[in-house]
Amino acid sequence: MTQTTMHNRQLTLASRPVGAPTAANFTLQQTAIPEPAQGQLLLRTVYLSLDPYMRGRMNDAKSYAAPVALGDPMVGGTVSRVQISRHPDYQPGDWVLSYSGWQDYALSDGERLIKLEPEQMSPSWALGVLGMPGFTAYMGLLDIGKPQAGETLVVAAATGAVGAMVAQIGKLKGCRVVAVAGGEEKCRYALNTLGVDACLDHKADDFAERLASACPDGIDIYYENVGGKVLDAVLPLLNTHARIPVCGLISQYNATALPEGPDRLNQLMATILIKRLTVKGFIIFDDYAHRYDEFVTDMSQWLREGKIHYREQLVDGLEQAPQAFIGLLQGENFGKLVVRVGDDELA
Amino acid sequence: MTQTTMHNRQLTLASRPVGAPTAANFTLQQTAIPEPAQGQLLLRTVYLSLDPYMRGRMNDAKSYAAPVALGDPMVGGTVSRVQISRHPDYQPGDWVLSYSGWQDYALSDGERLIKLEPEQMSPSWALGVLGMPGFTAYMGLLDIGKPQAGETLVVAAATGAVGAMVAQIGKLKGCRVVAVAGGEEKCRYALNTLGVDACLDHKADDFAERLASACPDGIDIYYENVGGKVLDAVLPLLNTHARIPVCGLISQYNATALPEGPDRLNQLMATILIKRLTVKGFIIFDDYAHRYDEFVTDMSQWLREGKIHYREQLVDGLEQAPQAFIGLLQGENFGKLVVRVGDDELA
Repeated sequence: MTQTTMHNRQLTLASRPVGAPTAANFTLQQTAIPEPAQGQLLLRTVYLSLDPYMRGRMNDAKSYAAPVALGDPMVGGTVSRVQISRHPDYQPGDWVLSYSGWQDYALSDGERLIKLEPEQMSPSWALGVLGMPGFTAYMGLLDIGKPQAGETLVVAAATGAVGAMVAQIGKLKGCRVVAVAGGEEKCRYALNTLGVDACLDHKADDFAERLASACPDGIDIYYENVGGKVLDAVLPLLNTHARIPVCGLISQYNATALPEGPDRLNQLMATILIKRLTVKGFIIFDDYAHRYDEFVTDMSQWLREGKIHYREQLVDGLEQAPQAFIGLLQGENFGKLVVRVGDDELA
Repeated sequence: MTQTTMHNRQLTLASRPVGAPTAANFTLQQTAIPEPAQGQLLLRTVYLSLDPYMRGRMNDAKSYAAPVALGDPMVGGTVSRVQISRHPDYQPGDWVLSYSGWQDYALSDGERLIKLEPEQMSPSWALGVLGMPGFTAYMGLLDIGKPQAGETLVVAAATGAVGAMVAQIGKLKGCRVVAVAGGEEKCRYALNTLGVDACLDHKADDFAERLASACPDGIDIYYENVGGKVLDAVLPLLNTHARIPVCGLISQYNATALPEGPDRLNQLMATILIKRLTVKGFIIFDDYAHRYDEFVTDMSQWLREGKIHYREQLVDGLEQAPQAFIGLLQGENFGKLVVRVGDDELA
C-alpha cells in the first residue's frame, strides 16, 4: 500500500504504550483525502521525521505539549509538497516544512509553514541538520553550554540527529569532544567522520572508568540527551561551573516506574551547589524561535564549507514508521531517522 | 572563662561528626596569643558568625573548600578589631571583617580584610545583612532568580540570615513572596515584619497541600537553601521557565546516607527538561566578589530607608558556639546567629 491520490493513509495512536511501544499501539487506516477550503492548502507528505520526543506524546501525561488523543494520527514534522492551493501565497508543487504528522495528506492554512528551496539542499535535511534537531544542537550547545576553546564537551547519542551536530559544533568551537555511542561501528563513524577526540561505547561494563580516562581534565559541558547511566558516569567528573543543557532523556522514555533507590535527588542538588553547575532545560521552538534565522545561516554555511557532516537513515514507506520509531528508542538507528512517505513527484 | 589578653581560646575540631554534630566534636583549648611579624596584624575577635556551610567543613570530603583539619580551629567569618598593628595600613582599634575562625585572636597580613566603619551600622551586621548572608541573598535572587513583578517567589528558612533577605528583596522587586519557616512565631514575624504574602510552617503534616494553596499561580522562583521535603513540595508547582538558585541544602547536611528509594534523580532531570527550568548553584564570594560594592550600596540604602528589617540572635561567649551551631542546623535560631566573643572595648 503506497501513497496515492485516492486515500489518506494515517498511522493513529491505537493505545498508549506501557513501557516500550509496540506495533499494536498504532493503527494504519485509510480515510478520505480532505478538501481544502478557501485560504487553505492540501499538503502531501514526502518525508516524515521520527524523533524521540514523540514517545512523550504517546503518554496521557501533562508535559510541555498536549498528548496525542487516542484515534488521532501521530504528530510529527514533515517535508511536504503543496498538492492543492487555495491560498494566495502558495503554488502547487511548493516544498514546505510542515507538522503534518504520520499521514499522507494534511490541510494547512499556511500558518507555521516554512517554504523550502530544495534546489539548494536535499529537502529532507529540513527535518534534520537544517531543522529541529540541528537547531536543538546549535542553541543548546552555544546558548546554554557556552563552549570555550580547550574545554571538554561530552555528548551521548553522538551519531544521532542531535548528538552528531553537537559533537561537530563543539569541535568547530575548539572543544575536546568526548562522544558516547552504542557500539563500535558508531564510534568509528564519530571518530573518523565527525572528528571527535574520543568515543566510548556506553554498553561497555567499565564505561564509567573509560569515561574518566577519556576526560583527564574533567568535563566542562555535558550535553544531556540520554540520562541514566551516562549521566551517572558524568556527574563525578564535572568541573566547577560546568554547564548541562538538558535536551532529552531518551534512556528514560520507556520507563514505567522510578528506579530503585537510594534516592539521589538531593545528592544531585548538592552536586549542583558544590560544583556551581548550571542545569537548564529547553524546548527548541518554544524557547529559541527568534534565533532560527541565525542558526540556518550558520549551519548552511558550515554545510557548504564541508565543516559539518550529516548522516540520514531513510526508511521507505509510511507503514514502516512504527517499527522504525520503536528501534529509535532502542538506539537502533544510525543517523537522523526519516521515513520516505511518498515520492518527490507523485505519478 | 572570658576573653583576655593573656590567652587565645580556640574551639578546634576534635572529631568529625557522624550525622548531627555534638559537643564532643569540639575542643575548647587555650594557646598562646601569636606575635605579629613585621607587616602583620594581631586581630581580636569581637563577633563570630555561625553559618550552615560550616557543617560541610567538618567533613573529610572534597567540596568547594578544604575541610577543617582535626585539631585546627573551626573556620568562620568574624568582626575583629586590630589589637597590634605592624602593618602600615592599619591602626590599633580599627574594625575589620576577617575570617579569623572560632578563636579570640588571629594573625593577618592585611590581605582579604575589609575595613568597617562601625559608626554607620552595628559592626556585627557585617556578618549578616551587610555581609556574606545578605550578599548571598542579593546575588542569588537577583542574578539567578531574576525576579519580575507579579511573579511568585518561594523561600524557605525565611527568618534565617539569608532567607529573610531573600524574602524582603523579593517584595522590593514586586514578587508575591511565599515564605516557609519552622513554627508559628517565625511565621508571624515573616508576615508582620518581613512583609511576606504568606508563610507556611514546614512542620505541618499537610505542608505540600498548603504550599499549593498559597501558590495559586504556581512558582516562578524557588530560592533553594534547605532541600528535602520543601523541595519535594515545590517541584510539582514550578512554572515553565522557573529559576532555582541553589544556595544551600541545610536539611541534608547531617545526613549520613542517601535516603531510601525510589531514585528520583532522572525524574528531577525530566522536570528540568519539561518545565525548562534553570537550576544553578553558586558560592557567593567565589562567583560574585566583583559585585560586592553594588550589593553594599543597595543594601545600605535599603537599610537607611527602613525597607529591610534585620534580626540578629546574639549568643554570649565563645564557649557557647558549639551548642548554638548545633541548634542552627536544627532550625533553633531565630534570625542571624552571631556569637559575641569579646567586648567592643577590651578592658
